[in-house]
Amino acid sequence: MWRELLPVGRDSGSGGYRRYAWTGADAECRAWFEEQAEARGLVHEVDRNGNQWAWLGDPSQGDAVVTGSHLDSVPDGGAFDGPLGVVSSFAALDELRRRGVQFAKPLGIVNFGDEEGARFGLACVGSRLAGGQLTVEQAHRLTDGDGVTLPRAMEAAGYDPDGIGADPERLARIGAFVELHVEQGRALDLTGDAVGVASAIWPHGRWRFDFRGEANHAGTTRLVDRHDPMLPYAETVLAARREARLAGAVATFGKIAVEPNGVNAIPSLVRGWLDSRAADQEALDRVVGAVESAARDYAAAHGVDLDVVRESFTPVVEFDHALRDELARILGKDTDLTVPVLETGAGHDAGILSTSIPTAMLFVRNPTGVSHSPAEFAAEDDCLAGVHALTDVLEGLAT
Amino acid sequence: MWRELLPVGRDSGSGGYRRYAWTGADAECRAWFEEQAEARGLVHEVDRNGNQWAWLGDPSQGDAVVTGSHLDSVPDGGAFDGPLGVVSSFAALDELRRRGVQFAKPLGIVNFGDEEGARFGLACVGSRLAGGQLTVEQAHRLTDGDGVTLPRAMEAAGYDPDGIGADPERLARIGAFVELHVEQGRALDLTGDAVGVASAIWPHGRWRFDFRGEANHAGTTRLVDRHDPMLPYAETVLAARREARLAGAVATFGKIAVEPNGVNAIPSLVRGWLDSRAADQEALDRVVGAVESAARDYAAAHGVDLDVVRESFTPVVEFDHALRDELARILGKDTDLTVPVLETGAGHDAGILSTSIPTAMLFVRNPTGVSHSPAEFAAEDDCLAGVHALTDVLEGLAT
Repeated sequence: MWRELLPVGRDSGSGGYRRYAWTGADAECRAWFEEQAEARGLVHEVDRNGNQWAWLGDPSQGDAVVTGSHLDSVPDGGAFDGPLGVVSSFAALDELRRRGVQFAKPLGIVNFGDEEGARFGLACVGSRLAGGQLTVEQAHRLTDGDGVTLPRAMEAAGYDPDGIGADPERLARIGAFVELHVEQGRALDLTGDAVGVASAIWPHGRWRFDFRGEANHAGTTRLVDRHDPMLPYAETVLAARREARLAGAVATFGKIAVEPNGVNAIPSLVRGWLDSRAADQEALDRVVGAVESAARDYAAAHGVDLDVVRESFTPVVEFDHALRDELARILGKDTDLTVPVLETGAGHDAGILSTSIPTAMLFVRNPTGVSHSPAEFAAEDDCLAGVHALTDVLEGLAT
Repeated sequence: MWRELLPVGRDSGSGGYRRYAWTGADAECRAWFEEQAEARGLVHEVDRNGNQWAWLGDPSQGDAVVTGSHLDSVPDGGAFDGPLGVVSSFAALDELRRRGVQFAKPLGIVNFGDEEGARFGLACVGSRLAGGQLTVEQAHRLTDGDGVTLPRAMEAAGYDPDGIGADPERLARIGAFVELHVEQGRALDLTGDAVGVASAIWPHGRWRFDFRGEANHAGTTRLVDRHDPMLPYAETVLAARREARLAGAVATFGKIAVEPNGVNAIPSLVRGWLDSRAADQEALDRVVGAVESAARDYAAAHGVDLDVVRESFTPVVEFDHALRDELARILGKDTDLTVPVLETGAGHDAGILSTSIPTAMLFVRNPTGVSHSPAEFAAEDDCLAGVHALTDVLEGLAT
């Protein structure tokens, strides 16, 4: 099952995955999901927002137990972020059947669309739309680097974009959602555990910094006559690192767009995206406020204009305490082990859905902590331990 | 004549020109050149390197007087850089005929291919090939951002790439080459002159800095575990400005490529291009050496690898003194004005050819000094003064 999915959307040069929403690679992943559902006799459906569901039992019965994750990737992403959760969901169902488990509740497996936001710049589009955190109007304004809007991209992929929007009836049928995910840090490696339970997701957001200067000839324009936006951008990159360190937070400029981007031309525009996350709202506000304030000073000193736009924001997520404790109880029942409970800086569909329904997350150990990279890795034994843990959890919740 | 050329390759969004070598916009410019030649009864030919020539008289007679420039542009370039020299050449020929001038020597107008290097990263490809400063082997390795090589691009545009290479017979027929160009600084504006004569071109080059770190998740990777290449890049941008200021030189990072370039991914690669120029070789070596040395320190401090590659280099050009003095004499003969003689930081085909044949340049005032930008400008009166000066020069040289 895992092997069929491995080559889809993999770049032969980087070895990384380029599975962007509503592209050909995405369609292949979706076809794979549908095949897996049908092979197990599950009812496959695509909801109004393009999320894929596979059902055992009738979801209209309510109080359903749902697991799953996403199949799309960041640019040159790894093999595990997303797919591990979906593959483990199908594997857990196989294990539940081997155990002869009788289900009292409907069981669902989901593949949320466009989790990474690699194409339209906003993460968790599928779950945000379903939960109403992204309005239809906002979704219509999402545009990729080639100027294609989200509705047109859905249409081109063969989906009807007219129906997108909040889907409260669907979410109301779900009693619990559990997402299994490869850990994106080294906490489990440091504690020596294969599997952990999430406690919270740090508040996080994306801010776009547009430095607008004056395009000019790089050979003939005197330094004093320049309004070069690359200089305040560079100073801002360094300020972001400094402020994050002081606050015990993270701040990253990982994406940039330059115009005209010619070797012998001073840029007219340097657009940089800041991703920042911190343990609480106050710390995050302090970091981003300090970076923005420093950037305004740098821009003014170079005669460069600056616009800062918050492109997305997700407040702190405290996962449902009762469900989290239930998971820890189920996973700890056979052993003396205390299951580690950890917080994370990464956003997830589970975080988005946590405002609508009880959600929880399981993490599988990542020995290097590397993620969003072809070097992302989890050992086979740890992946099997993840499937085993998810199986136990589903058995505990759905029977 | 000017008006026909204005819309070609102009981007409706930026108002800037995107006339890259061997593209559709380039082909339109070339068709315009051929029409202008034919409308004046000139013999049109394309040489083995794709440069266009229009001849009055038989060039095989030798000691030809040639004028011209280029029609391609940087990304979002202005209307004057290049085309002003070609349009002024045809306009000067019209004026020479109105004056009833009898030519003792063949007169040529040239459009050199790929002067800006916007597509393949190397400037003055057409004149470098003709002069032998770019070998056939080097030309075959030139590749654009889509992986298309120069020979394949020429072929796709309908030109035979097999014949490219040094063209000494053609250059040996030329007694003098004069290029008229819009000034790319404010020297003439500061002296109050419409037209000036070039004395020298600063030595200049392009260096590519590849900072290779480790792609990782921007939300979950602790700052101490990161190898983020954006940080030493930013420090290097600031070092380049500092070193250039200390040396009275210029240094610019105007082009960047980031992988994977995702908002929530720490980059694996930040590739920045340094353009630097100085009044003499020693000063330029000092600036680039100091920037590279600082960059190595920054990269090491972040656990990031650095490769620095010199992609192109052009030594100082002293234009032919006899021809330069002749131009100053011709332009000064009717007036008491001393024609200003100035040096420039910009590379030109005239600079490349100066090692093979006597060359000179005329500059037309640019009131803002802005170049390589849609805001590039020259007043109509100054353009007419440029045509008048070029007419005088051609009359003085070719009769």
